[in-house]
Amino acid sequence: MKATEKAYLAGFLDGDGSIHVRLKPNSTYKFGFQVAPSVVFYQADKEIEEIRSIRDLLGIGYIRRRKDGIAEYIIGDSESILYFLSIVTPYLRLKRKQAEILKEIIALKKKVKSASDFLCMCEKIDEFAELNYSKKRIQNSEKVKEHLYNRGLLTP
Amino acid sequence: MKATEKAYLAGFLDGDGSIHVRLKPNSTYKFGFQVAPSVVFYQADKEIEEIRSIRDLLGIGYIRRRKDGIAEYIIGDSESILYFLSIVTPYLRLKRKQAEILKEIIALKKKVKSASDFLCMCEKIDEFAELNYSKKRIQNSEKVKEHLYNRGLLTP
Repeated sequence: MKATEKAYLAGFLDGDGSIHVRLKPNSTYKFGFQVAPSVVFYQADKEIEEIRSIRDLLGIGYIRRRKDGIAEYIIGDSESILYFLSIVTPYLRLKRKQAEILKEIIALKKKVKSASDFLCMCEKIDEFAELNYSKKRIQNSEKVKEHLYNRGLLTP
Repeated sequence: MKATEKAYLAGFLDGDGSIHVRLKPNSTYKFGFQVAPSVVFYQADKEIEEIRSIRDLLGIGYIRRRKDGIAEYIIGDSESILYFLSIVTPYLRLKRKQAEILKEIIALKKKVKSASDFLCMCEKIDEFAELNYSKKRIQNSEKVKEHLYNRGLLTP
């Protein structure tokens, strides 16, 4: 990929993209929570061909057409996100800090062995959420800590 | 400006920017309508420092803080718009067609001498509005034509 293509994608992420980390209670997971990072772009359906061309340029992620006329381009798996962030980070202006913390979260996620590792990653997610000004956020590392204590997975 | 900076700005325009041409009845203008092209970026107020750094990189336009927490970066004069479009057009993916038509509109605007020149430019604005899917659009070249006939500025 050319440097100008990488820089274009950085501008596109800064302008339109969104970096999320979902922390969601889910009893099928070892520590009771699912951690799902994602990078999402939102465009009107009429731009779907151009969004596809961006997807093809990157070769990762998938496109979802919502019923409300919005097309979402979602990069949802950790390896693809790391690849994408490695491409755009040098050129980011608005979302560089989010990108860097997301990389740390994914690195921590890969290395989680114990409940305390998991909690440590969740604290990083708190830091990320503050940057993102997530107002409707319900789950945080405190809730995770409580759960881990209650289940005896973590001791004070 | 570096090629990667230009490409970044193209991505930012594709993602977040908006290209407008306002056609507005105004009796103080010779042909009864004001034609105001603009390029606008919308970001949350918290990003104002980064938006300022983009403004400083370009050296054109101004920033307006709205009361609803949105900062608008507006490039409103024709010369600045032409400069900006000359920088980003080679790298645009989503808004290239709009950019090209806007350049034509500005070129036509500069050369308007007669009512029929003015009408010809307004027809180009219709073409632009169709690309932009401007649903709430009230004014168009038909209205302009009607006005020009009624005032005797144009004869069938």
